[in-house]
Amino acid sequence: MLRLVQPCRRILMTAVNLPRPEVRPAPQEESEFGEIVSSQRGERPDYSINNRLGTPSGFTNYTPQEATCVIDWKAKLLEVFKTYGYTGIDTSPVEYAENLQLTGGLDKQIFGVSRLQDGTLTKFGLPFDRTVPMAIYLAKHHLQMTFPYSRYDIDWSWRGETAKAGRYRAFIQADVDTVAPEISALADAQCIVTLIMGLERLGVPKCNVFLNHVDVAKSFLNDVGIPSDKQNDALRAIDKLKPDNEDDVVAELVANVPEINEDTARDLLKSMSYRGPLSGFKFSKETSVEAKAGLAHLREIEKIAQGMGIDTSIFQFAPNLTRGLNYYTGVLFETFMPGREQYGSIASGGRYDKLVEMFNPNLHLKGVGGSIGLTRLFDVMKAENLVDLTKQTTAQVFVGYRTKDELQAAIQVAAALRERGVYTELHLNVPKVKKELKIVDGKGIPFALLVMNQDEIVLKETFKKKTTEKQTDQLTFTSIEDAVAHIERLKNEGLLDRSQKSQTEIEECKEQ
Amino acid sequence: MLRLVQPCRRILMTAVNLPRPEVRPAPQEESEFGEIVSSQRGERPDYSINNRLGTPSGFTNYTPQEATCVIDWKAKLLEVFKTYGYTGIDTSPVEYAENLQLTGGLDKQIFGVSRLQDGTLTKFGLPFDRTVPMAIYLAKHHLQMTFPYSRYDIDWSWRGETAKAGRYRAFIQADVDTVAPEISALADAQCIVTLIMGLERLGVPKCNVFLNHVDVAKSFLNDVGIPSDKQNDALRAIDKLKPDNEDDVVAELVANVPEINEDTARDLLKSMSYRGPLSGFKFSKETSVEAKAGLAHLREIEKIAQGMGIDTSIFQFAPNLTRGLNYYTGVLFETFMPGREQYGSIASGGRYDKLVEMFNPNLHLKGVGGSIGLTRLFDVMKAENLVDLTKQTTAQVFVGYRTKDELQAAIQVAAALRERGVYTELHLNVPKVKKELKIVDGKGIPFALLVMNQDEIVLKETFKKKTTEKQTDQLTFTSIEDAVAHIERLKNEGLLDRSQKSQTEIEECKEQ
Repeated sequence: MLRLVQPCRRILMTAVNLPRPEVRPAPQEESEFGEIVSSQRGERPDYSINNRLGTPSGFTNYTPQEATCVIDWKAKLLEVFKTYGYTGIDTSPVEYAENLQLTGGLDKQIFGVSRLQDGTLTKFGLPFDRTVPMAIYLAKHHLQMTFPYSRYDIDWSWRGETAKAGRYRAFIQADVDTVAPEISALADAQCIVTLIMGLERLGVPKCNVFLNHVDVAKSFLNDVGIPSDKQNDALRAIDKLKPDNEDDVVAELVANVPEINEDTARDLLKSMSYRGPLSGFKFSKETSVEAKAGLAHLREIEKIAQGMGIDTSIFQFAPNLTRGLNYYTGVLFETFMPGREQYGSIASGGRYDKLVEMFNPNLHLKGVGGSIGLTRLFDVMKAENLVDLTKQTTAQVFVGYRTKDELQAAIQVAAALRERGVYTELHLNVPKVKKELKIVDGKGIPFALLVMNQDEIVLKETFKKKTTEKQTDQLTFTSIEDAVAHIERLKNEGLLDRSQKSQTEIEECKEQ
Repeated sequence: MLRLVQPCRRILMTAVNLPRPEVRPAPQEESEFGEIVSSQRGERPDYSINNRLGTPSGFTNYTPQEATCVIDWKAKLLEVFKTYGYTGIDTSPVEYAENLQLTGGLDKQIFGVSRLQDGTLTKFGLPFDRTVPMAIYLAKHHLQMTFPYSRYDIDWSWRGETAKAGRYRAFIQADVDTVAPEISALADAQCIVTLIMGLERLGVPKCNVFLNHVDVAKSFLNDVGIPSDKQNDALRAIDKLKPDNEDDVVAELVANVPEINEDTARDLLKSMSYRGPLSGFKFSKETSVEAKAGLAHLREIEKIAQGMGIDTSIFQFAPNLTRGLNYYTGVLFETFMPGREQYGSIASGGRYDKLVEMFNPNLHLKGVGGSIGLTRLFDVMKAENLVDLTKQTTAQVFVGYRTKDELQAAIQVAAALRERGVYTELHLNVPKVKKELKIVDGKGIPFALLVMNQDEIVLKETFKKKTTEKQTDQLTFTSIEDAVAHIERLKNEGLLDRSQKSQTEIEECKEQ
């Protein structure tokens, strides 16, 4: 414990509500696949190494404000995921390239690792998603593990594809997965609920979750006589169906599946384009047992999600949803922001009961998982003005001082706050009140405690509210203990992370 | 809010203290530099793809228990770093290779990124530490930033060197740095204090921190007439001085610095081998102003650290400490566990006032930083039996049930706990009490709430204490509210993370 001196110096406490710092947008660059170019921005300062200071194309290049927001998002998701019982995994940052190539489909996009010294290639590749490293980890470590295994993973995925707006060569995915020899609809429901709760925690407006089941989708194809070896092709085409492209999908179907004609294809699309509550969908008596069981499984998921506190009006049955069908074997889901569907799905996943076997054929583990595409979601939320870009730091309180005499008191204030778990930035520079307040302003730190050069302690709180720009509150205390106790109260009331972008502003954007 | 049904079913609550699960050690493999081989372990199960399931040499391959511990460490360090006002940075996971090559020294060890499809090399490399990506970030973003800038970064560093015990090709470093146009000894002290507090939070036994200042070290060389262009070579040799290798260091000195003879070299080593309190070291009257100022700076750091709550007996002045002197310009520090010096420094760093200029010559920013080598420290702490390897999960409470009838109650219990921020694993598998308790045991979850098939609610707590193996406490409640409120009390008292390795056991290992 610190000894807190008393009587002490004057402390001035200010809670500031400041204009947003000016943010230079990160330069946008395009490049062809494989042709990885250095930046060619204009308006450069005149120094010789400027070429190297461009943004590697297809990689994130966040401003300090953006980085602070993204890091805050990761922390929030991590907390939600842990609350739902998911635990962290720690896979190697590389995998054997041949393991990555095993799942197919993304071969052309995998980044390998080389030795820079002589350009020698290694046997390693950088993972293209977070699910395959988990499957490899399970194939290796299953004997040391207790199932069901529920893990989260928030880390980079790498794809050497053409970089363009919204498509990155490295992006963060926030995954949750449950794997076990046997799992029930409870695992499926929990995965979906966790991701919905995660999105809610990030301030994403209320979403719609489209649900489907592989067996349900296939029953539609069986009903019109599409043979099993053509079903994956057919489903991939049907997955592309949108309000304005029916003709294209019909053309693709008829071309790939000679067993059906254009009329049948149109009827099929019509019956598969249902969007609505699960309870509103009825199969005919002739429908297969498997399809009925698939729909019953979806209804069970909905019921469990309701028990978990989800408003089930967000669920919509979408029989044409198939997510490319690469390794999915049961429930499939995709999440959209209503009225903002143009951004695509912001969280998706499904059941995969055969994935782990690809890496260890003797190991039969069923799995369900999903992920939030954090990097893309951030772009979406930024475009929709739904993120707080007013902070450059997670610090909650700034502690300043003006003279060397006050330094020891300031150090004591900071130490006492830190002991109470308050994120405290102690002024580390030449102490001048104007400079100090400039730091508080620039970084968006919500509270400042300034130790003043007086004999009594004054604790001052200034909080300029949006509506009454000049409103000033100032608190005065006579000891460090009292000042620290006040901050502790603010912490306990959850007020230390006060944002300069008011909740009202964000709510307004959400409702637009 | 959830509606909590009452009256309800019987709930059985158990707090278990279980034997450690059997852990297969990760296979150890060596390989020559650059010759990256696939695993050749024996005793393989008979499946065709087994070669790919070996451990990539030089990369971590943690068991679930180890991963849980390492992830817990990252979370703890992150919390300490934020408390000290450091904020997260979000740099690109790759850098331009030419930027990485700019700092010199590690060229041969840099990993590049290639395209797996055709083996084409890209212009990107994987960073060999966390400081250079920060310097590049500052060179790019300084106009958008408010200084002093204090950031933490806990992420991979990559080195394509010969993999052997304790040396990895990818390892996690936990860095803190402060950068600004002007910073004082306060920033140096805070950096050191933060790392010490971080180590303490990880359960690392009390450490010694060796301090030095570049100007002090150089004054010793000036005194014996070593010219400035030979000083870096000399210091690199003197840095290697250990109790048993004086002859080697003398030989290296005489070979590299013809200006001095063997006797002078021995005298120099004698005067530079001081290890003791800063206050116990006295310069002669002839010593340069710079050297005296350097020592005064170290004393100021010590004084500030004391104000921050550090017992300053851990500080020792070590004039021969130079850390290779690559980019350091002021204070230097290294941290050792007393009696365990053979493991090397576990946290180190120093002042670098010229680093950022290398990437942007017009930008003059002074910096101080240090890092904990998390991957290596974990090996050390594991070898010393100072880590808790009893948990496979961060879940604090397991919620089980036996029949479908009890499922809805179990879902409500889990939802209520989750709403209170309790990390809750809901049973996702076939419900059988024996199987459920096996999960609780295997994962090392400290508490279990089992919803039983009775009409009244019974809440049962079983906690087998180390000393009285069979001691059993059982709590019975009559409602979900009461059960949840009990867990909430345990949470508020900090008891939910109860470990199966008692604090006493760990303290015993620390004192050895």
